[in-house]
Amino acid sequence: MKTSALSAFALAVAVAAGIQVSSRSLTVVAVDPAELKSFKPLPRIIASDSNPVTEAKVNLGRMLYYEPRLSRNQRISCNTCHDLRKYGVDGLRVSDGFKNQKGTRNAPTVYNAAGHLAQFWDGRARDVEEQAKGPVMNPVEMAMPSEQQVLAVLKSIPGYVDAFRKAFPGEDDPITVENMTLAIGAFERGLVTPSRWDRFLSGDQSALTDAEKAGFNQFIQAGCQTCHAGTYLGGQAYRKLGAATPYPDASDAGRQQVTKQEDDRMVFKVPSLRNVERTAPYFHNGKVESLNEAVKEMGKYQLGRQLREDEVDSIIAFLKTLTGNIPAEYVKRPALPKSTSGTPKPSVT
Amino acid sequence: MKTSALSAFALAVAVAAGIQVSSRSLTVVAVDPAELKSFKPLPRIIASDSNPVTEAKVNLGRMLYYEPRLSRNQRISCNTCHDLRKYGVDGLRVSDGFKNQKGTRNAPTVYNAAGHLAQFWDGRARDVEEQAKGPVMNPVEMAMPSEQQVLAVLKSIPGYVDAFRKAFPGEDDPITVENMTLAIGAFERGLVTPSRWDRFLSGDQSALTDAEKAGFNQFIQAGCQTCHAGTYLGGQAYRKLGAATPYPDASDAGRQQVTKQEDDRMVFKVPSLRNVERTAPYFHNGKVESLNEAVKEMGKYQLGRQLREDEVDSIIAFLKTLTGNIPAEYVKRPALPKSTSGTPKPSVT
Repeated sequence: MKTSALSAFALAVAVAAGIQVSSRSLTVVAVDPAELKSFKPLPRIIASDSNPVTEAKVNLGRMLYYEPRLSRNQRISCNTCHDLRKYGVDGLRVSDGFKNQKGTRNAPTVYNAAGHLAQFWDGRARDVEEQAKGPVMNPVEMAMPSEQQVLAVLKSIPGYVDAFRKAFPGEDDPITVENMTLAIGAFERGLVTPSRWDRFLSGDQSALTDAEKAGFNQFIQAGCQTCHAGTYLGGQAYRKLGAATPYPDASDAGRQQVTKQEDDRMVFKVPSLRNVERTAPYFHNGKVESLNEAVKEMGKYQLGRQLREDEVDSIIAFLKTLTGNIPAEYVKRPALPKSTSGTPKPSVT
Repeated sequence: MKTSALSAFALAVAVAAGIQVSSRSLTVVAVDPAELKSFKPLPRIIASDSNPVTEAKVNLGRMLYYEPRLSRNQRISCNTCHDLRKYGVDGLRVSDGFKNQKGTRNAPTVYNAAGHLAQFWDGRARDVEEQAKGPVMNPVEMAMPSEQQVLAVLKSIPGYVDAFRKAFPGEDDPITVENMTLAIGAFERGLVTPSRWDRFLSGDQSALTDAEKAGFNQFIQAGCQTCHAGTYLGGQAYRKLGAATPYPDASDAGRQQVTKQEDDRMVFKVPSLRNVERTAPYFHNGKVESLNEAVKEMGKYQLGRQLREDEVDSIIAFLKTLTGNIPAEYVKRPALPKSTSGTPKPSVT
């Protein structure tokens, strides 16, 4: 028996017996290196010159991220809607906020978000630091009544007084809303989820299976990389939803709310495809539950193509290689410092 | 045919045919969770409060790490002895420095080194920032004649003038030896190599094979974790070489050279076991080429035990799980800025 025939036979017997068999030695699909040039692996952390990352800032930011006392009813934290164990999302169409009020847009994942050109679906915050302030004060989200109230909570808790002093040494009055957002941002800059795709981009040809490489080729052929390229496969530009075929839900003006420009009507930030397998439901309105449907809709509305089922399946095989490792130790919920008698009480109204 | 018999048969045929077969479904070896408590996965970066990490600092530090013009003959860079593609070492017993002078101790890896309690085998530098200055000025290493000469080189190169200004904004005179070491240190704080061991510690039981788990148990049983525990499996304490049985090479006084204390004679920093498979030769004197021999010597000199060959093999199976991924993109050699007519020339004397 020739080796190849024996291999095929052994493979069949092994599969029949339920043994996991690696097909990597049989690789035949090639990816054009020129097509890879517009993609880059994730950085270690998404460092910023305007918010240097220090250990003390990250430790404080981690506590604040999990801190429900930053909400009016003291039950909602950043992690409520951006659950770090669930790839930074809550899996809801739109999130539940204060008094079960619904948000208007799907909560995007916080993983790798620091690398985007701006934050929120409409790009209204420049970076994760500026973003961090939004939900705390948003009346349908964490609903804190005022910045004074936020500071009153933090200043009443000795553990925070100490942690802010360590994170912002030499400042006379380190507990400020600005510093709170710098600390949360510093923590979020480490929320990076490298995946097999990054190993592949770094030169490990065995990191992707043949089916996944074929999926990448299909992704390129369909034109997805027009918007979804770079380190984050998205997150680097704004695009009109319905560029090729009018999008049926025109209820959200998108970036027009920020710029007041008519051209920006229904324009949104292109979302990143990192961890897309795990961050359903999809789109700004969270209306699409399945990745299969999401890929088809993008083909239709953005590319003007009706993708065949086998093309969609192939693209999804590639997209799943973007599912990264959650940094379990980094995102471990810390012990939160104790309240005192001076800590403001929760309000339910 | 029963399933198990069929499995064994398929396995045999598959192995005979050279097909990679995963044995992970057959896991039976358990690791005591209590024994894991003294180990921790690697952080994303090894952040420091005294040297905040910024993008500009890392970019400058990366250039300086690869910069041969920081040596007297302009041919030796940090990377010469701590080659980032070779797990941060040069594979030599002791390194070749200026004019082929030999160092006196084995060059330790720079990967994960920022997490150690101090730098150098004798701990004479507090952190990677302080360390970075050492070899540049050391007459048998990079051998720069003076700090003035280092600064003259950097100030003569417009690309560095610009990069220092960006990395240390607001400083009147950013090109200083102190800032050079801060930039190199910031870069080195990202030289982290997570491995399967980190996935295992984060809860992924499938990340280690049975043989590797058995190896960990053997590692514990032998007592290796007395010194090699924590995040770095070492790097956190000083120990006398030959604590159990006198070490035959007494030519290096070790930490005594730093502290001048008699008790510190032949005391060295416990090296980290991260990537130990790839960082031969071993020990401060680089005298041991094989990991097998290194494990046996540690058993003898530190633990007073003669480890059997099968015990050594098992421990090595575990040690290999500490071989991590080199962050290819992060350590990619950058383009170095061009010299000018004002740049000091190399000296070979």
